[in-house]
Amino acid sequence: MSIPIITLLTDFGICDEYVGVMKGVILSVNPLVRVVDITHNNDPQDLNQAAYLIKSFYRYFPENTIHVVVVDPGVGSGRSIIAADLRGHVFLAPDNGVLTLVMEEREIGAIVRVENPDYFLKSVSSTFHGRDIFAPVAAHISKGVQLKDIGGPVDKKELVSLHILKPFISEKGELIGSIVSIDRFGNLITSIDSRSLEKFCKTASVERLGIWIGKKRICGLVNTYESVNSQSPLAVIGSRGYLEIAVNCGNARRYFMAEKGDPVKLTKPSDLQTLPVF
Amino acid sequence: MSIPIITLLTDFGICDEYVGVMKGVILSVNPLVRVVDITHNNDPQDLNQAAYLIKSFYRYFPENTIHVVVVDPGVGSGRSIIAADLRGHVFLAPDNGVLTLVMEEREIGAIVRVENPDYFLKSVSSTFHGRDIFAPVAAHISKGVQLKDIGGPVDKKELVSLHILKPFISEKGELIGSIVSIDRFGNLITSIDSRSLEKFCKTASVERLGIWIGKKRICGLVNTYESVNSQSPLAVIGSRGYLEIAVNCGNARRYFMAEKGDPVKLTKPSDLQTLPVF
Amino acid sequence: MSIPIITLLTDFGICDEYVGVMKGVILSVNPLVRVVDITHNNDPQDLNQAAYLIKSFYRYFPENTIHVVVVDPGVGSGRSIIAADLRGHVFLAPDNGVLTLVMEEREIGAIVRVENPDYFLKSVSSTFHGRDIFAPVAAHISKGVQLKDIGGPVDKKELVSLHILKPFISEKGELIGSIVSIDRFGNLITSIDSRSLEKFCKTASVERLGIWIGKKRICGLVNTYESVNSQSPLAVIGSRGYLEIAVNCGNARRYFMAEKGDPVKLTKPSDLQTLPVF
Repeated sequence: MSIPIITLLTDFGICDEYVGVMKGVILSVNPLVRVVDITHNNDPQDLNQAAYLIKSFYRYFPENTIHVVVVDPGVGSGRSIIAADLRGHVFLAPDNGVLTLVMEEREIGAIVRVENPDYFLKSVSSTFHGRDIFAPVAAHISKGVQLKDIGGPVDKKELVSLHILKPFISEKGELIGSIVSIDRFGNLITSIDSRSLEKFCKTASVERLGIWIGKKRICGLVNTYESVNSQSPLAVIGSRGYLEIAVNCGNARRYFMAEKGDPVKLTKPSDLQTLPVF
Repeated sequence: MSIPIITLLTDFGICDEYVGVMKGVILSVNPLVRVVDITHNNDPQDLNQAAYLIKSFYRYFPENTIHVVVVDPGVGSGRSIIAADLRGHVFLAPDNGVLTLVMEEREIGAIVRVENPDYFLKSVSSTFHGRDIFAPVAAHISKGVQLKDIGGPVDKKELVSLHILKPFISEKGELIGSIVSIDRFGNLITSIDSRSLEKFCKTASVERLGIWIGKKRICGLVNTYESVNSQSPLAVIGSRGYLEIAVNCGNARRYFMAEKGDPVKLTKPSDLQTLPVF
Repeated sequence: MSIPIITLLTDFGICDEYVGVMKGVILSVNPLVRVVDITHNNDPQDLNQAAYLIKSFYRYFPENTIHVVVVDPGVGSGRSIIAADLRGHVFLAPDNGVLTLVMEEREIGAIVRVENPDYFLKSVSSTFHGRDIFAPVAAHISKGVQLKDIGGPVDKKELVSLHILKPFISEKGELIGSIVSIDRFGNLITSIDSRSLEKFCKTASVERLGIWIGKKRICGLVNTYESVNSQSPLAVIGSRGYLEIAVNCGNARRYFMAEKGDPVKLTKPSDLQTLPVF
């Protein structure tokens, strides 16, 4: 027998009862569910950050996992809630663009608007749909309710989409990205994925790339944090598959005085010749 | 077969091993238990905050859930521990008033003092009853041990009770409450429940109520955060069923420079006529 | 049927997807596992703190629990990963000394280097072994894979060991220890275990010991926090079995302006006679 899994990604924090209440509702509908917290500390109402997070974690769960995302500044307004299938994973989220990166995947399957109140709590508040809609709908799906029973189909093109700035080549031939998130270690996770990087580097050697954060430059990519001296900066392809700026045994956020959203610029080796090495 | 659930509400934080140790003890006694964290970030030793939290979350769990509350400044002193039944929910908490609001419910059933050391760890410390008493007793209850086996009955009137200031009508005819807690979004959750509010409003329209936090006033209740402009303040009946002060896409704590305990005052429409609108 | 338990102790924090991803990998390999978080807020890369934590929590779990420790500044470097058996508990950790205190236990059994890639994720990154090695290996062990199948045996003496400063007697005959960690309540947990204390006190009465934090002194040990007045400092044997400095209903960290690593000094009653009482 397979054990149903529901993951939770919210910006509710962990000081209030909100997350516990969602789990209570889920277990009331389906006591067999295994609930897994991804994080409840997404920056409040930061859809961009959540969009990248979702793309990073979902694939490590077994098929048939239901991923619930409640980063939902528009709760109680007209925004709808959608459920979507991607290779057997089900995503349940507000239609506010938080699934933008998931929707880019080729294998995206059925998408429905969550409309059938049979699967909601009896009384739906205007401020806590996590409890009143997301939790019970997810739990019902975990019991075998089909997406088509939850609501009518919707076309991908009708969905709200975030304007997520993808890495691009500037007029000067540089690869431009930005800092998407900063983790607990102060590692700067950028929007530059390994594929964009490979394409950019093609002929050049990654060991000689220039990686710029503001006016500071790191010279070349390495494979591990320990490839450089303690307290020295470095660039790696991080565990998410994106370019990451770190400081060995240190904190890149403080080292570069960097913030989420700051630009990151890559230059090819040839550009470096006349530049002072940082 | 029903899967036993134990919820944990503590002020232990999540940086130390305390919560994990409680779970180890619970699973050692009954490996089938599903443990659900409500929060471990209750403000240290803030019984009032915990009392409201308990009332807010428990009803969303299935019957037979065991709710363990360890906000326990008096651990190791003479205070006793009580277990109480409320419509099939079991509450296990220090007798320090943290269950005051639960005890107000009409359907409160058996209450016992936790006394039977057969259900404790063999060695009971004077500083960590969460591990030595609460966890194993909860786990034994989850295996079918009856409250009467845990200890002798106790009358509700004998219990320590918090002096929880309920909303009241002032001499001037205003409804006076206070800020009970502030959530991660900066929403100010007050002690004014929807019933008190309805009673106060009776003839008046809620759209024209004056809601005062210090010298600032919000005019009228709305139904959703998005009913007002971004960064504007508003008042709603929140998901707990209490009056809540928020700022749409903003932070009411900062907006009003409010703190837990601050008074909140409601005035009827007639009182507003001569007042400047905020 | 016994339900397999895996505990997680990391310094990953709870704002990123790292912990959730590990759980996804574990449940993909063995959906029956019960995963228990000890903490993910170990101070980043603080091996000493983690070493004490491990010793404090593991014994409260049932036998056959698998304890995964990922405090791993050397990830991706040459450091190896070890798995060790201690009275039926399995520990899985980097060979960086974090298991130093566990290795001191007499009953330590088989120890192996984790080498068999059959139990790793197919692609192993150089930055996230928690996901790629620790999680799947732990999950396979939970399914019955034996340590000998994971890798070759290793002698305890070959392992990296932390230089953990044990309490010692100074030339002046004082017992010297240090602050190992500070919990959420501001309690100062020291390296002085109850056995060292007993040995030191032998003839003297604990009620008259001098306990020095910097130039401030507490006079004697008590049994409970409430043995002293509110806001007064005290010393107890804490729940971990170590000397702990606290302030009743207060915060010892702030009271003593103490930090992790600060020395703590114990003097016998006779030494006190000419000293001013604090």
